[in-house]
This record gives sequence, C-alpha cells and structure tokens, in this order.
Amino acid sequence: MRFDILTVLPDLLDSPLNHSIIKRARDNGVAEVHVHDIRDWSVDKHRKVDDYPFGGDAGMVMQVQPVHDAIRFLCSQRHYDEIIYTSPDGERFSQKMANAFSLKENILLLCGHYKGVDHRVREHLVTREVSIGDYVLTGGELAACVICDAVIRLLPGGMGDETSALTDSFQDNLLAPPVYTRPSEFNGWRVPDVLLSGNHALITEWQEREAYERTRRLRPELLDE
Amino acid sequence: MRFDILTVLPDLLDSPLNHSIIKRARDNGVAEVHVHDIRDWSVDKHRKVDDYPFGGDAGMVMQVQPVHDAIRFLCSQRHYDEIIYTSPDGERFSQKMANAFSLKENILLLCGHYKGVDHRVREHLVTREVSIGDYVLTGGELAACVICDAVIRLLPGGMGDETSALTDSFQDNLLAPPVYTRPSEFNGWRVPDVLLSGNHALITEWQEREAYERTRRLRPELLDE
Repeated sequence: MRFDILTVLPDLLDSPLNHSIIKRARDNGVAEVHVHDIRDWSVDKHRKVDDYPFGGDAGMVMQVQPVHDAIRFLCSQRHYDEIIYTSPDGERFSQKMANAFSLKENILLLCGHYKGVDHRVREHLVTREVSIGDYVLTGGELAACVICDAVIRLLPGGMGDETSALTDSFQDNLLAPPVYTRPSEFNGWRVPDVLLSGNHALITEWQEREAYERTRRLRPELLDE
Repeated sequence: MRFDILTVLPDLLDSPLNHSIIKRARDNGVAEVHVHDIRDWSVDKHRKVDDYPFGGDAGMVMQVQPVHDAIRFLCSQRHYDEIIYTSPDGERFSQKMANAFSLKENILLLCGHYKGVDHRVREHLVTREVSIGDYVLTGGELAACVICDAVIRLLPGGMGDETSALTDSFQDNLLAPPVYTRPSEFNGWRVPDVLLSGNHALITEWQEREAYERTRRLRPELLDE
C-alpha cells in the first residue's frame, strides 16, 4: 500500500514517519509513504503557495494552482483510490474507515494549512474530506500522520504481532478491557486475582465482561451500532 | 503555559514540536513543551519499561513503576492542572476542551504505547483520559502532538494573527465558510461573485449563510449544542 502526502511543511512529518511502526512498515516494504512539497508546483519565484482570502478576512489561504498541478502530476503517475483533504469539517475518521483504507492500494493525502485551502480544490480535486476530530489544528500534517499510523498498523505485517489489532478498542464496537503486567502488587495496588489464576476460561470471561462494562459506562452509544 | 510529555519514543516528537506554530510559540515564550523519556525512570539495566500482560494476551504492556516514578518526579517539581493519559477510550478531545486547556498553567501528557499502560496507572496516577478520536494508534505520541497543537494555537500570541482562531470551525458551533484566494478564475472555476464585490455587509451575510448551510448539511448535530 502507498500513501502520498502533499504538504507545505514536509519537514514536520519527518520524525513521525521515521519511527516505530511506520518506519518498520516502510523498511519491510509493507507500506510506502512519500512526502511531496506543494511549493515544488508553485509558479511564483519565491515558491509562494498562499495568498490573502477574497472578502478580506484574517489568515492566508492555500492557492488552487499549485495544489491542482501537484494532484494532476501525481494522478498521471498512478491511480489513487482516494484523494483526501484533511479538514475539521470532513467526515470523521474512525476505526471502520481505517479498516476500509487498509484495503486500498494508493491514497493521496492533501494537508491543509494556514486558514485552509481554496474551496475550488475541495469542490473539484478531492474525492473525500476527512477529519480526525472536532478540533482545529495548525495544519493537516498531524492528521495525515494519524491516518497513516492508524491504517498502516492494520496492514498484514504492519505490526510485530499479527493478532494484536484484533483485541483493540472499536474492532468489535467494544472498548478494550484493562491490561496489567508485572509486578502483581505495586504501591499496595494489586492486579485482579483472576488474571493471576492461570484459568484461561475465567480470564477470557473476565476480559469480555470488563470490555462490555467499560463500554456501557464510558461509550454506551457504541453498543447500539 | 507548559506541557510535559512522557513517552517511550521521544524522538518521534521531534519534528512536530519543532516546526510551524509550536516552534514559534516555544521560541517566543508563549508555551514550553518538555519531552521526557519514560526509560529514564526504568530500574531495569536494559532500560526496559514494558512486559507481557497478565492473562496471556498478545502485545506488551507499559509497566506501572517507571510511569509512577516519572509522574511522581514531575509532580515534585510543579503542580499540574491535569495529568492526561491519551487513550482511544478516553473522553473525546474537542475544540471546547482545547479552549479549556488553553487556560491551564501546566499539563502533563502521558503517551501510551504497545498494548497500553498497566491499568493501575489509569486508576491511581492520571487525572483524566483523553482520546483524539475513535481509532487506534500505535502510541499516544501523535495524540499528544495533536493536543499541544490545538491548544497552543489558541494561546495569546500563539498564532501570527490573533483574530484568526475566532473564525475557526467549532468556535461558535458552526463549520467555517468556504475560503477562496487569487486567481478569481482558474481552470474555468470561478470564485463566487459576492466575494469580489467589495461589499462587506454582503460578504459577511454570505459567509454566515454558508457557514450555517454547511453545518446544517454536514454536521447538523452541532446546531443543537
């Protein structure tokens, strides 16, 4: 699977894309992630890609031309299953969407910056708008990293332990049960006895009950989905 | 305002914390962000901070001792308004929460990693659990960056243009209206005439109507809040 990321701040993506799971997945050929600087498609001699908004508001707006030319160039190289603009008013990213994206071949992620991108990009050039949550970020770069991370860890070989994702929160509309590791007592705080019992049937029963109870208490709406 | 981030992957945070708004805010003394390696509090000679989960599941769990000692050390240095564990089953991060955090003095962010943190940390050591969205990430590092970014841009002096945040999506339970910049026509796609009219009353009216219409169409539930 391949991600291409279009950004005005390619350096901001450096460390998240070169550590941990994403690094390993890239090293192992599980996923490719290519970062492109939108300024490379600027026709301005100072490589400018933003300008004042029509209507006279505060903030700068990313121009349609460099984004258009960058997307057109990348689309001439391969077919993209999705061209995604990350924006707080997009469709909300979820574990279900991450699962769906993990089955795609090529995904293009356009990171907004400044006050946003010229609306003609959103009307004519992207296939989908995705939000990682109901809050506003400086730019779409962290959103792009979040999407890459959530998707790449689901790819076969993406994680060290293949079974690990199946017990994650949301995979079955349940939050994950509590986890504990050694020591069995610390600072007077003890691990629940059942986890030390060695009785796997009882342990599984406890985990399922805890997962259900946590979900009912913290996120009851997940149980209705 | 000061953020302290506890992580097992300090290097992953390098580039997001040293670019764009966060960098400028740090350079200007608007915000401090300090990253601490949890391994510094490991008592293992290999600086190990994780172990197998009790009950025999896949994945590794962050141990209570190094996290406990790290939090205790930091809390001996200053008072934290919140000690936040980033976890997909936490309270959902929102623009409202970002606004509230921007009024705090010291926030401690604990990044989960591996299969999660020993549940005793969650029961006894943190004041709050926060999720940036309904999806599972490799670790809490990107979540911590997202929270820092969303909060720091709201601090006085955090952004270049102080009025810029006020027109963001969610600040008034409305999505932002479309923005456009030059050229007024590109590829046959024209900017709405009203934005070129120079009539500020008409422009404001159009922006308010568009913001309302976009919200009604894309996120009607925001209008009920």
